[in-house]
Amino acid sequence: VTGKNTVPGTDTTPAELDSALAAAAAAAGPFAALPPTERAGMLGAVADALQAAGDELVEVAVAESGLSEARLRGELTRTATQLRMFVEVLKDGRYADVTIDRADAEFVLGPRPELRRAKFAVGPVLVFAASNFPFAFSVAGGDTASALAAGSPVVLKAHPGHPELSALTGRLVTEALRDAGAPDGTFAVVFGVETGIAALRDPRIAAAAFTGSIAAGRALADIAAARPVPIPFYGELGSVNPAFATPAAVAARGEEIAEGYVGSFTLGVGQFCTNPGLLFLPAGHGLEGTLTEAASSVPGARMLTDGVHTGYSARRGEILGTAGIRVLVEGETGDGLTAAPTLVATDVPTLLAHQGELLEEAFGPLSIVVEYTDVKKLPAVVEELAGTLTATVHTGPGDGAELSPLVDALRSRAGRLLFNGWPTGVAVTPAMHHGGPYPSTTAPLHTSVGATAIERFLRPVVYQDAPEELLPAALREDNPWGLPRTVNEAGLSAEWGR
Amino acid sequence: VTGKNTVPGTDTTPAELDSALAAAAAAAGPFAALPPTERAGMLGAVADALQAAGDELVEVAVAESGLSEARLRGELTRTATQLRMFVEVLKDGRYADVTIDRADAEFVLGPRPELRRAKFAVGPVLVFAASNFPFAFSVAGGDTASALAAGSPVVLKAHPGHPELSALTGRLVTEALRDAGAPDGTFAVVFGVETGIAALRDPRIAAAAFTGSIAAGRALADIAAARPVPIPFYGELGSVNPAFATPAAVAARGEEIAEGYVGSFTLGVGQFCTNPGLLFLPAGHGLEGTLTEAASSVPGARMLTDGVHTGYSARRGEILGTAGIRVLVEGETGDGLTAAPTLVATDVPTLLAHQGELLEEAFGPLSIVVEYTDVKKLPAVVEELAGTLTATVHTGPGDGAELSPLVDALRSRAGRLLFNGWPTGVAVTPAMHHGGPYPSTTAPLHTSVGATAIERFLRPVVYQDAPEELLPAALREDNPWGLPRTVNEAGLSAEWGR
Repeated sequence: VTGKNTVPGTDTTPAELDSALAAAAAAAGPFAALPPTERAGMLGAVADALQAAGDELVEVAVAESGLSEARLRGELTRTATQLRMFVEVLKDGRYADVTIDRADAEFVLGPRPELRRAKFAVGPVLVFAASNFPFAFSVAGGDTASALAAGSPVVLKAHPGHPELSALTGRLVTEALRDAGAPDGTFAVVFGVETGIAALRDPRIAAAAFTGSIAAGRALADIAAARPVPIPFYGELGSVNPAFATPAAVAARGEEIAEGYVGSFTLGVGQFCTNPGLLFLPAGHGLEGTLTEAASSVPGARMLTDGVHTGYSARRGEILGTAGIRVLVEGETGDGLTAAPTLVATDVPTLLAHQGELLEEAFGPLSIVVEYTDVKKLPAVVEELAGTLTATVHTGPGDGAELSPLVDALRSRAGRLLFNGWPTGVAVTPAMHHGGPYPSTTAPLHTSVGATAIERFLRPVVYQDAPEELLPAALREDNPWGLPRTVNEAGLSAEWGR
Repeated sequence: VTGKNTVPGTDTTPAELDSALAAAAAAAGPFAALPPTERAGMLGAVADALQAAGDELVEVAVAESGLSEARLRGELTRTATQLRMFVEVLKDGRYADVTIDRADAEFVLGPRPELRRAKFAVGPVLVFAASNFPFAFSVAGGDTASALAAGSPVVLKAHPGHPELSALTGRLVTEALRDAGAPDGTFAVVFGVETGIAALRDPRIAAAAFTGSIAAGRALADIAAARPVPIPFYGELGSVNPAFATPAAVAARGEEIAEGYVGSFTLGVGQFCTNPGLLFLPAGHGLEGTLTEAASSVPGARMLTDGVHTGYSARRGEILGTAGIRVLVEGETGDGLTAAPTLVATDVPTLLAHQGELLEEAFGPLSIVVEYTDVKKLPAVVEELAGTLTATVHTGPGDGAELSPLVDALRSRAGRLLFNGWPTGVAVTPAMHHGGPYPSTTAPLHTSVGATAIERFLRPVVYQDAPEELLPAALREDNPWGLPRTVNEAGLSAEWGR
């Protein structure tokens, strides 16, 4: 399919989609059966190919997205780095979670058979690319990297915001995989809204991943759940990313916090999943001047797509029209695709009285400063917040364990808690967790960034009393892939039954 | 709520349910914050309490379920063993998956913050008890044990098949937890279909687990997916559990296989999740006499509930009425709740021509012998099978790697592959995987038996640059709980960005 759709606006035909899905289904077995070090080599080859074509990729990306060359060069490096992180995950081998229970004639509930469990690829994965990271969350982004690492072929539904870049990246990925020895059908790019929905409904697709809006993500999640055979749907949707500064934090470095906040909520024209949408400041914080000056000084910039711009304008209008909102910086949405930052202020009672208008993500350069009167009452406010990818706390001298109720409340709502920093700029590193309760994701046990993103595309299977010649390589006693394994010897249950 | 519902047929009132949910929500934080060794002690106390009351529990269970005393005594031991396995899981500590990335000023994508990730309880869990294991998959069964181990309070919706046993078990669990120091609200039993649905829709419930029929499980899964905030729904539904015997297996020990098969599909009056519903035998196997004799000699026995009996009668009638089915043993469903085994035979073309009638689980003592002509064609047959908990292969002298295509095809459909044995009698042991693609479960990455069942109720959260005094115990540098941890030092990314 890749290569046939370089003309923007041309949807993949049903026959082309069927061909891509059939090829992915045929590739699933052979691709999953490769030694992990071979798949690692393929991922490395993709990373190399993307960087070798960096100039061309970035040129096309600048033209289609309007993002800066510097930003896109950095994002391309991040994308290659994500792929290489999974090279390390595959070499490490713990992802396969190999566990062996030796046969145990003395097991407390009767003789225990030999059990050998590992994780195996789920099968073909459908990835919906995002618009806001044309490299890192698009054709060769983290979802693709982690699914390929798991051994699952990928059918990639391109985002209409950057069709030429999607086709070009798709060709590079497909060729790099082919040249490195991957089976035909391991990767394909498809185009069109209806194409994506048809693929999501297809029985050959075993799981799907998505990054985008709450409306689109929920609609797709509902389709995945309503299939005759429902499948896991890993959607990253909308996130408010609340931030909190204590009185001591404001006293010690209020100006720095105000400027850091403005920098973070306006970063990427507010089009990251992690821009802080709320900053809770103590009443009388005295930072309105700094906040106003900082936000006013950020120039208007182009948003990614017409759809994003239209959606942002509507949410901005709704927030500005809410009773009890004070405008610090009105900003503008302007003609065409531009937007300049909007900053408003309110207090906790107003926020809680207008949750429908104020507590859903505004995807764009708008944030809300919320004045509170008592840190001790913040945990109850947090209980009203929806699930979020991140929550941020700024502390100052003398702050200590008395903040634990706030932090614990935030943990119940968020996937990443960060301190004395800002949530934009997600580190691509093994321990990262980029996930959270709904609506920040549709699968709160999982992450789309970090080494454990691979777990979304792996399913455990246990072999019981299998003849050695019918065991998969991952489970053979001679361990040809050299995977780390946990072995439970006989006798461990002596005390379990009493 | 427990203790107020000892009269069979009395549903929990909405006010009582609200009280149970409020108590569970209030308990969630304190219960999750306990050191894992303390929760381990509580689980051990529950196991001890159940066994101390064994005579009374078994007497009530016999009266309500009609199962034999010997079976129920064994099942009670299994239930206590499951709880004690999670005692070991908590003492081991790997369940928390603690991972620390040290800050790294030289990280390839710019300075990396310090990240400390662990898994934390998801919050209150709703468990729907099953009828077929009044102990092991009911009030104090594996779902309850694994959720409590994770640190999640449990609201247990009792199965109407054994209400007095549910109330009695609930009282014992609640008292044992209370006496061991668990917060009020950690456990409650509720009764009634509408009560269960209301609980599933309640925002205080963070995840649900279920074992039962495809119809009921899918209806509940759909409710969980349609909530304003969807939640994970771990349903174990229906499973056909196909078994295959090669020509060499039949030649070497055909009689043994035939008798083992009949023993397995009739075990528990066919009311286990793992009874084999299909046995593929080579054409001309010559085992019809043995099969017929063995199945005829199994006496009729009481099924669990009127609903199970009625559902089984209907499925049996549907299968017996399918064109191309030969009846080996007609069996009967009799008056009242009894059923005697039914065994039918057909061939692969008939099976594939009547998938709607023949390839869905018949929950009861009925199985289908399917004659095949060529082992090499079996993988294509397997492609037509739905997801299943188990798949079984019987091999004989000379069988070897040429069976790999069959085994690989089965792996794509099943969670447990077993060889030269029978799928009933699930070992309760760390490496067990009791799960599989839909409709065998609604969450194919997860298991309801084995040590990893705890993962269903744990959600990762990462702390970024947190002050030591605001870190949870699981993540503190001094590691007060002594949890095993993976630490990634600075410098590991040197090669990732190129």
